[in-house]
Amino acid sequence: MITSPHNGRLKLIRKLQERRHRERAALFIVEGEDLADAARAAGVAPEFELAAGVDVEPRLLDAVSTLGSGTRVIGVHRQRWSEPGGQLSVYLHGVGDPGNVGTIIRTADALCDGPVVLGPGCADPYSPKAVRASMGSVFSRPPARAPLHGLAGTKIALDVRASSALGELEAKPPVVICLGAEREGLPDRVAALADATARIPIRDDGPESLNVAIAAAIALHDLRNRMAGHG
Amino acid sequence: MITSPHNGRLKLIRKLQERRHRERAALFIVEGEDLADAARAAGVAPEFELAAGVDVEPRLLDAVSTLGSGTRVIGVHRQRWSEPGGQLSVYLHGVGDPGNVGTIIRTADALCDGPVVLGPGCADPYSPKAVRASMGSVFSRPPARAPLHGLAGTKIALDVRASSALGELEAKPPVVICLGAEREGLPDRVAALADATARIPIRDDGPESLNVAIAAAIALHDLRNRMAGHG
Repeated sequence: MITSPHNGRLKLIRKLQERRHRERAALFIVEGEDLADAARAAGVAPEFELAAGVDVEPRLLDAVSTLGSGTRVIGVHRQRWSEPGGQLSVYLHGVGDPGNVGTIIRTADALCDGPVVLGPGCADPYSPKAVRASMGSVFSRPPARAPLHGLAGTKIALDVRASSALGELEAKPPVVICLGAEREGLPDRVAALADATARIPIRDDGPESLNVAIAAAIALHDLRNRMAGHG
Repeated sequence: MITSPHNGRLKLIRKLQERRHRERAALFIVEGEDLADAARAAGVAPEFELAAGVDVEPRLLDAVSTLGSGTRVIGVHRQRWSEPGGQLSVYLHGVGDPGNVGTIIRTADALCDGPVVLGPGCADPYSPKAVRASMGSVFSRPPARAPLHGLAGTKIALDVRASSALGELEAKPPVVICLGAEREGLPDRVAALADATARIPIRDDGPESLNVAIAAAIALHDLRNRMAGHG
């Protein structure tokens, strides 16, 4: 039983709250029983796992947890990355909110066969907040890292200012849906690499835009439905 | 210029971070310039507004802000509530996460003509986090409060275990999409008040469910598209 806050494993867990340490070590932390269960269900084993009251004094585990008091378990896992691919997938550029990145990973796992491909400027999918929002989909469908120009298939950039509605475009697989930051959208030089630009129709007197995870979900659902029509 | 932390307006702002004070006073706080602009664009005036360096010492405004340091403006607004209605709207029961409630208010404002109707157990749509996630849609389309049995139209309960896919149901307006908490779904006694139960089809080997705001968005987009086909 770990009884000292200076224990090496506790120190590592604390360090892995920072992106640069996660990237250097290619590790990440998995907090709480639900996520530990999700890893197990996906057949993924931790490097090590500390259970409160079994492996470590509860107050010491709480002290290194981003969940606060009452944390039952923290695991340290190796980061895994997919290769881009699939008939339908998502590419993100500059999506900085970890909750949105995690939610998009979960949604893609539910709706399409390809991974979420992360371009420059995205939140770390292995941050505690993103892992939590993914609800374990980082285990069953790890994200990929690649530049847009390296991806195969028809690249459709979502843009609220586009003249075509998404439903007007052909949905012949493979398709990659490309989304940018919520306010700025995709930079012009990135949008120029797409094969088409489309918008999700919204009410004229409604908000300026949709949340990026909401837009990704609607586009995936829409294209998935229409692709089911293709032989 | 306010120079004392004991000023009555600052005290009120601090109190309004708590739900019970917000409900008692029927007021809420609007933090930051983007949301202040959204209120103005919707033609909604604050009860009062404090700008850093103009009306109040910046450090005093920071001290009562949930945004942290650098807050430029905080307004106090009166809560407004819509009546249920519209050809397409959303009913939430037990959706406890304020970010999800705010995101659904924004999404409904973008995709349907009716408000988001809040039943029991939902997060306060006027909490700072929900207001922020709504991106100002609480101003242009305030939420409503009502029990499910009081709503007019066809009530469709979303449930991952339903045998019918949403696309198989008729989409004759008016329709109310009903969603419950992410894990538990709608309680049986609430689901029993719905006219139909449907699921959003997801991959068999994907996650168990979609995030509740994602599910609401997909359902609204799907029904809106199909309703456009009805005369």
